[in-house]
Amino acid sequence: MSKTVLKGNIVYAKDKDKLEIHEDSYVVVEDGKVKDISRELDKSYKDYNLVDHSGKLIIPGFVDLHLHAPQYPNRGLGLDKELIPWLDTYTFPEESKYGDMEYSKKVFTRLINELWQNGTTRAVVFASVQKNSAKLLMDMFMESGLGAYVGKVNMDRNTAPSLTEDTQVSIDDTEEIIKEYENKSDMVRFIITPRFAPTCTEKLMGSLGDLAIKYNTPVQSHLSENQAEVLWVKELFPDSKDYASVYDEFNLLGQTRTIMAHCIYATDDEIELMAKNGVYAAHCPYSNYNLSSGIMPVRKFMDKGVPIGLASDISGGDSLSMMSIIAGTIQASKMKWLETDKELKPLTFSEAFYLATKGGGSFFGKVGSFEEGYEFDALVIDDKELADIKDLTIEERIQKVVYIGDDRNIVERYVRGKLIEKPF
Amino acid sequence: MSKTVLKGNIVYAKDKDKLEIHEDSYVVVEDGKVKDISRELDKSYKDYNLVDHSGKLIIPGFVDLHLHAPQYPNRGLGLDKELIPWLDTYTFPEESKYGDMEYSKKVFTRLINELWQNGTTRAVVFASVQKNSAKLLMDMFMESGLGAYVGKVNMDRNTAPSLTEDTQVSIDDTEEIIKEYENKSDMVRFIITPRFAPTCTEKLMGSLGDLAIKYNTPVQSHLSENQAEVLWVKELFPDSKDYASVYDEFNLLGQTRTIMAHCIYATDDEIELMAKNGVYAAHCPYSNYNLSSGIMPVRKFMDKGVPIGLASDISGGDSLSMMSIIAGTIQASKMKWLETDKELKPLTFSEAFYLATKGGGSFFGKVGSFEEGYEFDALVIDDKELADIKDLTIEERIQKVVYIGDDRNIVERYVRGKLIEKPF
Repeated sequence: MSKTVLKGNIVYAKDKDKLEIHEDSYVVVEDGKVKDISRELDKSYKDYNLVDHSGKLIIPGFVDLHLHAPQYPNRGLGLDKELIPWLDTYTFPEESKYGDMEYSKKVFTRLINELWQNGTTRAVVFASVQKNSAKLLMDMFMESGLGAYVGKVNMDRNTAPSLTEDTQVSIDDTEEIIKEYENKSDMVRFIITPRFAPTCTEKLMGSLGDLAIKYNTPVQSHLSENQAEVLWVKELFPDSKDYASVYDEFNLLGQTRTIMAHCIYATDDEIELMAKNGVYAAHCPYSNYNLSSGIMPVRKFMDKGVPIGLASDISGGDSLSMMSIIAGTIQASKMKWLETDKELKPLTFSEAFYLATKGGGSFFGKVGSFEEGYEFDALVIDDKELADIKDLTIEERIQKVVYIGDDRNIVERYVRGKLIEKPF
Repeated sequence: MSKTVLKGNIVYAKDKDKLEIHEDSYVVVEDGKVKDISRELDKSYKDYNLVDHSGKLIIPGFVDLHLHAPQYPNRGLGLDKELIPWLDTYTFPEESKYGDMEYSKKVFTRLINELWQNGTTRAVVFASVQKNSAKLLMDMFMESGLGAYVGKVNMDRNTAPSLTEDTQVSIDDTEEIIKEYENKSDMVRFIITPRFAPTCTEKLMGSLGDLAIKYNTPVQSHLSENQAEVLWVKELFPDSKDYASVYDEFNLLGQTRTIMAHCIYATDDEIELMAKNGVYAAHCPYSNYNLSSGIMPVRKFMDKGVPIGLASDISGGDSLSMMSIIAGTIQASKMKWLETDKELKPLTFSEAFYLATKGGGSFFGKVGSFEEGYEFDALVIDDKELADIKDLTIEERIQKVVYIGDDRNIVERYVRGKLIEKPF
């Protein structure tokens, strides 16, 4: 059983409303889990392996709750369109390439390295429709030491011909991966991934809901990202009460653990349904800017008790940096505050930090915090070049790193107590 | 006379609507100015010093049209407040420190190095009220080789006691610097800098307007950043038609070349007055997010013919990266498009790139473009790690660098044809 102690300035968010700060303290890690945090090291831990990061910051690893691996090569490109034309013009042609395993490997190598570099220790990921590429991505995440949920995308209509699956093949491929990867790893797991309602027939969604329940497999999809998309879903599913209900009717909305990305235009009824079913919302501020989608009313979801995490959503989003996404989340919430006549209060720093760590981390279990029993996913941050002009509190130092630091400030990454080196 | 030729992929924006792209070409620089761009090097240039950057991108240096040097230590801090309480709580206490020349030097060293690092080759800068600190900043910019306008701030009311100037001393100090620096450098020049109408008495603003005209000195200030500020100005100047007219009445709105930062809540009349007087608007998207100010309707200003540049506005803004600010400008314009019921069209990539180069650069003269006769301020960009997955056009490569690159991609900086090394 591994026994490690790290020394430094330890910061995490147990609750949304404030950061827990243990200045110049020790965090004791046993068997990958946090055992204790204290100012003085108890002598029972004296023979543990001590890693001294005095002066540095130690924070939970970041959790990216929604991103598209095969869109990695498109980051920063084609951001002059809204969702539907963007999918048709840029995204679907790129995703058509992933029958090629060599190309898949080249892209996934870069993606996983870059997640690691930016301190993202857990991610929830869309692959593309091609099953072998999705398997390769799972294998590569396992090799990397980072934690992930990976989904093979399902689409059997309204997409590029090269990506349109035969419905039964789509279902069978999905079940094949579920069974093949069921017991391979508890760090990298499969997640059922209907792209979104417009690209899936009722038969496909129904069968995916059945698989979710049969294998107790989690689910991810998109919800109410764009106004035109919402209208389209209304046309395609005229008998459903609303967009969220479409998923709900097919057991794809919280019947097993579920993440819905975006949720910008969700109605009060839909938000309440998500809260009731415990469905996670993945907030992707930069993607929502880039595709002119709008700003999710995060405060409203929070108030109604919907679990929330933050996400890059590359390549709708351009940045993989969760630090930048925390800042973007706060900034977007300030514009939402103005937009709602100052009704929905801006997010505080600790709230956004919580969402990027424990908020999304809770989808993985006891992840994203340093409370006792939590898996020790952590980043060691060296901020001396940012913080050497005047005296700053630990909380001010964290804010400064998040707003103006970058991957260069991250000097070590741990997942489940294990130091993770650059994967590839 | 220096004679240099650079080879590479040359990109600039002569007009807003498209990028000029010269793939694998030569730019000939004589005496600091662009002489010619061509695909084949004319033999009359064969004896010029050739710098071969084949494969790399060569773009104009960035222009930051509005930032506060003494707020540098506060970047990323205290962004939980709106403008007026933020000034009182964070900014004024920090600006009070600049009677200390050692502290000034420490901060300005870091600031100028970081401007250089981020490829900002020209900047328009607020110092603080302390005249010696402003002079030091001018001296340090001269030493750096970067171009700048620097202003000693004027404030004789409604600020911290430690920053409140005697009106006559404020005027005299300003005139002293104008005279002392009049002929010192044409790269680093003084700019008259009433902080904003609420912190300046009528007497002070009147005298500053007189100095502007007497010495033909440019002017910078703030305009309509925040709704509470606009109301405050209305109370303080009940006889003026609007906020812009306050400055106009004191010859501080385009009687000499003028920059007004923010302009979020400017009325149509004010925008027309700015256009008529040729007053620049400095758009600071991240600052406007951070201080919950709002989003400037850049498209409307553009349509009405107001000259516009982009700006970091540290430390209301957190980032000094003009690449990031270009992306932020496009993103903000997309939210403005939604906010105005799709009336004000989002900015295109080339429009935002133009604003960050030639748009702001025109305040300095023939700066920010590679047209013949323009001063050769340039960045050499190595983007091979960003662009090696699939074939990209030069325009796509530039977009990628701006969205997901950073200072690490900038390998050389030129100002007026001269290679600039890290200043300090």
